[in-house]
Amino acid sequence: MISSSEPGDAAIRGSILIAGVGSAQGLGAAIARRFGREGYPVVIAGRNAEKLEATRSRLDADGITVRATSGDVANQEDVKRFVAAAAEQAPLAVAVHNAGSNRPAPFLELLQEEFEAHWREHALGAYHLARAALPALLARQNRDQPFSHGPSLIFTGASGSLRGKANYAPFSAAKGALRNLSQSLAREFGPWGVHVAHVVIDGGIAGERLLSKRPQLRDSRGPDGLLNIDAIADAYWTLHHQHRSAWTQELDLRPWSESF
Amino acid sequence: MISSSEPGDAAIRGSILIAGVGSAQGLGAAIARRFGREGYPVVIAGRNAEKLEATRSRLDADGITVRATSGDVANQEDVKRFVAAAAEQAPLAVAVHNAGSNRPAPFLELLQEEFEAHWREHALGAYHLARAALPALLARQNRDQPFSHGPSLIFTGASGSLRGKANYAPFSAAKGALRNLSQSLAREFGPWGVHVAHVVIDGGIAGERLLSKRPQLRDSRGPDGLLNIDAIADAYWTLHHQHRSAWTQELDLRPWSESF
Amino acid sequence: MISSSEPGDAAIRGSILIAGVGSAQGLGAAIARRFGREGYPVVIAGRNAEKLEATRSRLDADGITVRATSGDVANQEDVKRFVAAAAEQAPLAVAVHNAGSNRPAPFLELLQEEFEAHWREHALGAYHLARAALPALLARQNRDQPFSHGPSLIFTGASGSLRGKANYAPFSAAKGALRNLSQSLAREFGPWGVHVAHVVIDGGIAGERLLSKRPQLRDSRGPDGLLNIDAIADAYWTLHHQHRSAWTQELDLRPWSESF
Amino acid sequence: MISSSEPGDAAIRGSILIAGVGSAQGLGAAIARRFGREGYPVVIAGRNAEKLEATRSRLDADGITVRATSGDVANQEDVKRFVAAAAEQAPLAVAVHNAGSNRPAPFLELLQEEFEAHWREHALGAYHLARAALPALLARQNRDQPFSHGPSLIFTGASGSLRGKANYAPFSAAKGALRNLSQSLAREFGPWGVHVAHVVIDGGIAGERLLSKRPQLRDSRGPDGLLNIDAIADAYWTLHHQHRSAWTQELDLRPWSESF
Repeated sequence: MISSSEPGDAAIRGSILIAGVGSAQGLGAAIARRFGREGYPVVIAGRNAEKLEATRSRLDADGITVRATSGDVANQEDVKRFVAAAAEQAPLAVAVHNAGSNRPAPFLELLQEEFEAHWREHALGAYHLARAALPALLARQNRDQPFSHGPSLIFTGASGSLRGKANYAPFSAAKGALRNLSQSLAREFGPWGVHVAHVVIDGGIAGERLLSKRPQLRDSRGPDGLLNIDAIADAYWTLHHQHRSAWTQELDLRPWSESF
Repeated sequence: MISSSEPGDAAIRGSILIAGVGSAQGLGAAIARRFGREGYPVVIAGRNAEKLEATRSRLDADGITVRATSGDVANQEDVKRFVAAAAEQAPLAVAVHNAGSNRPAPFLELLQEEFEAHWREHALGAYHLARAALPALLARQNRDQPFSHGPSLIFTGASGSLRGKANYAPFSAAKGALRNLSQSLAREFGPWGVHVAHVVIDGGIAGERLLSKRPQLRDSRGPDGLLNIDAIADAYWTLHHQHRSAWTQELDLRPWSESF
Repeated sequence: MISSSEPGDAAIRGSILIAGVGSAQGLGAAIARRFGREGYPVVIAGRNAEKLEATRSRLDADGITVRATSGDVANQEDVKRFVAAAAEQAPLAVAVHNAGSNRPAPFLELLQEEFEAHWREHALGAYHLARAALPALLARQNRDQPFSHGPSLIFTGASGSLRGKANYAPFSAAKGALRNLSQSLAREFGPWGVHVAHVVIDGGIAGERLLSKRPQLRDSRGPDGLLNIDAIADAYWTLHHQHRSAWTQELDLRPWSESF
Repeated sequence: MISSSEPGDAAIRGSILIAGVGSAQGLGAAIARRFGREGYPVVIAGRNAEKLEATRSRLDADGITVRATSGDVANQEDVKRFVAAAAEQAPLAVAVHNAGSNRPAPFLELLQEEFEAHWREHALGAYHLARAALPALLARQNRDQPFSHGPSLIFTGASGSLRGKANYAPFSAAKGALRNLSQSLAREFGPWGVHVAHVVIDGGIAGERLLSKRPQLRDSRGPDGLLNIDAIADAYWTLHHQHRSAWTQELDLRPWSESF
């Protein structure tokens, strides 16, 4: 592969920070597993310290050693800590924003707090991650380095990033902000060697969050009718390793049987 | 015109609220003039009380009587006041969100306050306006009324609503949120008779804000090379009067000579 | 209205050519009626000479005198004749492409002829109309003329212009070609003063074509649940009269109750 | 990798057909090399029999054995031959449409033949490939097979697929048709297990076609400023091997330094 000009040494390969990690059966953990398995030093961050520690412990049992640091992606100081924790292990090579949830409601029953909370998780959190991670990613890029691919800044989006549906105003508005932010950063920092990508996940994810509430979906959607978290993690892995002459800015992912 | 089934009586025609009015040579004032000239009771709202009063006074001198009420569109209570002021004059028929500015900057020189301020003006302000205006617009729609067009909720967008450019992260993110919000509201409230539209203004506006800073643009862009505020106001007028069997959700407007 | 700087004289106002006119209860005829009522010399063109003559005769009975000329929009010589017929009456001010139908089918049951036929009607027809009409529209624009709006070239699109649905490959492919053609022409000829616009009609049209096959739709969709042809024609009228400082390139139209 | 459940046996892995192969330094050849190196039986097809044979011979010298079959992708019988040639070697697993060129010209200097020729190469060729390949791809999918990824139908697009630029009407129109066709097929055949993807190549390709005409581009664009053909081929490889629970429909690729 042309994109495989990567040295074996972890210190040189760099570290990855994943902000927005919950259960060991969630997407954040799957990304940690994917990169950790290949020798990347990994830092996982999330709001729920207990859940985060359980995930760290489970990954450890699977042979993937990661560092966990809890905090709120919407809090600037917390995010700076996340980035510092990753940079301590190796120069930061990848930062992933995977935080935020979706709580649909009829518009006229919303509270301002909810509209704002979605924005904080998805958009302000992404802003903080970008602000804290970009100097580290740029520093890495500016070295005389052997990579043909970039350091990467990857944001998790959804079908709601592309269009606003009825009852999804807070989520869609927040995801629309995140998407445009990612485009603005891609245009501003691409020419400096940082690969900024936005992943549009269009469909239900077969992770802990969805299946704990609606376990019947696994069957009713048919085989592979929900997005496999390891398959999504593969896409993040691939994005990071794309040769810098052929970068993807926006990647859509959906199950084969999804109607769209 | 099929869309002209409007009675002559102002009380029945309804009132219009324009949030985000500054100078008398700005877009907000032009919309006020357009609807006021046709007999709509008009309320203009803006943050700068002094400028707002000057605009009201100037409109008055031009024979357009409007009511001015100052306040911050990002403040829920202020927006409730705006809506109440319009509803006092006649049932609310049109609410326009035209607030917010654009202060581009290199991303790494931004303060969190600036990122958030853009969101408050463009997206949270639009949220508040929608929350406060929709019950009034729905009430009007629910009456046994003679209109073939809807009450309208119109948001001002920009080319940055569609894509994020380098150095425009705060504006693009805020406008992306607003756009998705408008789509979500269109899908939720269209079937209840409220026309929710988003206007993408793609180019420089020949209004006070731009021309006071860069007066040379008027000439360098050639004749009609900037968007005429009265021409834009015509588009808002037309959107409101579209027959409900043929509504536009998103309208782009740009000068004939604009490169896009 | 700023856009109303139009002289009263028909010779100066210019003529309109509508290619793709069928029944008197169709969209093409509604556009003819809209412009004819205001004194525009009108030429209607369509493939079915008999139907076209019936429509001309019906418009005449309604007090709208138009000239009818039959032929195939996918045939270059026919389209040249259409344009010449309009230019004979007055300098060409508006050309509308409204031709083509939609015959969905499972992809594996398609014949090449069908795939190609859709393209000829929608895309090649639009190409011919543009090629034949643009010199006339540019000639008009180049005169020392009193208009603040442009001569116009307007194309009829559909929701299938924006995305390809299952079983709609021929229509979607043809409409996608037409849409990109319209954008290319807008960018090439806008700066020369020709307004090129694309109308996305998203929903069923309450015209003869749909209602003769599925009359029950008029009721099942509820009041104004199909697009009123006069309301659509209003949109074409408005597009042509937009001030050149604020042109719309793409206009979506859908019924208030349409799910989208 | 979750997507790596692929057996080692070439007969089971299936064959790949690449329609639109020219020089050995072009994208088509790079895709052939990428799949051939991994043991896929490869058929390359192109209009220029001599050039095709030279490419086949060069690949052979590099240790990649492929079969070459010349013909025109816009000709139904030729395309049937291409598919049959691939299916002879192993059940068809991947079909790639990579044909067509771009010959920009001022719109008013175009000949109808040119407008049509672009459509034949890009859109009608894609139609023929889909018609001929889908039954073979579906047959493969319907077997009791061990794959977690689909058989694939991949189309090469460009930035002109998304928007029409001045002077690019024939190319943009043809590519717009192709894009909507790919979406229609994705929605129709995805639920039957066929992965239909569209690759938007946004930038100059560092292949023989561009560099033979404008060799200076290699330097003036800076390092990796043109798309490396092997990097693009990697993306096609990855698309084919995506787990069916997380398929990409549209993938954009551009150089890190490209302005977009």
